[in-house]
Amino acid sequence: MEKLLKQIEFIKEIDKLKYIQRKSKLFNSDRNENDAEHSWHLAMMVLVLGDHSNNNIDMLKVLKMVLIHDIVEIDAGDVFIFDTTKDHTNTLEELKAAKRIFGLLPEEQAQEFIEVWLEFEEGKTNEARFAKAMDRFEPVLQNISNSGGTWAEHQVKHEKVINKTKIIEQGSSVVWEYSKNQINQFFNVS
Amino acid sequence: MEKLLKQIEFIKEIDKLKYIQRKSKLFNSDRNENDAEHSWHLAMMVLVLGDHSNNNIDMLKVLKMVLIHDIVEIDAGDVFIFDTTKDHTNTLEELKAAKRIFGLLPEEQAQEFIEVWLEFEEGKTNEARFAKAMDRFEPVLQNISNSGGTWAEHQVKHEKVINKTKIIEQGSSVVWEYSKNQINQFFNVS
Repeated sequence: MEKLLKQIEFIKEIDKLKYIQRKSKLFNSDRNENDAEHSWHLAMMVLVLGDHSNNNIDMLKVLKMVLIHDIVEIDAGDVFIFDTTKDHTNTLEELKAAKRIFGLLPEEQAQEFIEVWLEFEEGKTNEARFAKAMDRFEPVLQNISNSGGTWAEHQVKHEKVINKTKIIEQGSSVVWEYSKNQINQFFNVS
Repeated sequence: MEKLLKQIEFIKEIDKLKYIQRKSKLFNSDRNENDAEHSWHLAMMVLVLGDHSNNNIDMLKVLKMVLIHDIVEIDAGDVFIFDTTKDHTNTLEELKAAKRIFGLLPEEQAQEFIEVWLEFEEGKTNEARFAKAMDRFEPVLQNISNSGGTWAEHQVKHEKVINKTKIIEQGSSVVWEYSKNQINQFFNVS
């Protein structure tokens, strides 16, 4: 019962993810996406596109990654991928957030969630590569549906978009092929 | 590539789940939860509370169930669990919605998703029982955090709340024990 009470505290705490606004907008929309919606959409993309992974992947692990990957933003906030002053990668602030929030769980579970989150952040395993590919692919689809979305708003140029999205290729060559074509078409680059 | 194009159509279509408002509100909040946020929260609850299932469960299957269980509401809308004129169970309208929306996917995948959704709706397997337990448990937590929430709004009495939530016991006796105590305490029933 003590274990259950800790788990319920965690379940209540992560409700706050629904208030964290991303820079990206919903499809064909002016409404910002929040992190909980984003995490659900990535989980669906993993289920639907899993077969396009370059490598065999443990689907349950990838789902865990995308479901929890943004929970640290409850404390650390969303960092825009094209932010030039702040790097998105695994900051000290995010690690502190992971320890506090996952630390609400019973010890063994807290440890597991922190490890899964770190594995995602490091991006070196097949599972992390595919999860990260989905995380980059969703805004490509959203931005194209929104006349350029965040790319247009922040005048991000073709080359930079390609540089920031080509990591998709490490998870799925097929999804990258499609993304690259869509981006090139949008920017009128052949 | 034809397969990928169908999958991307589906991924775009299900964005609409983010606009389907539930009757329940976020924790300690006046803001309604939407179906995408709800589905993410259930997936997290499955990950966190999976060990409290009465029976061994295939976690990947349960995650699929909770992630897709409300997608039919894009066409069929959210039905309030205490609605006295409309029964929530697997309506013809929902089946039609499942066929249209999952039908956007390549055939084999469409078939799989429809089967997983039907298994959830029927609620007879261990996986469906645990998924349904989580689906009923979230609003218990939300309502109690919101001074009764939808129970108070619609003057739902203690006995009816117990009747509608006791299905939790089929998925997890531990979670049901906690829920029942919380509900009794809220209604001042010993």
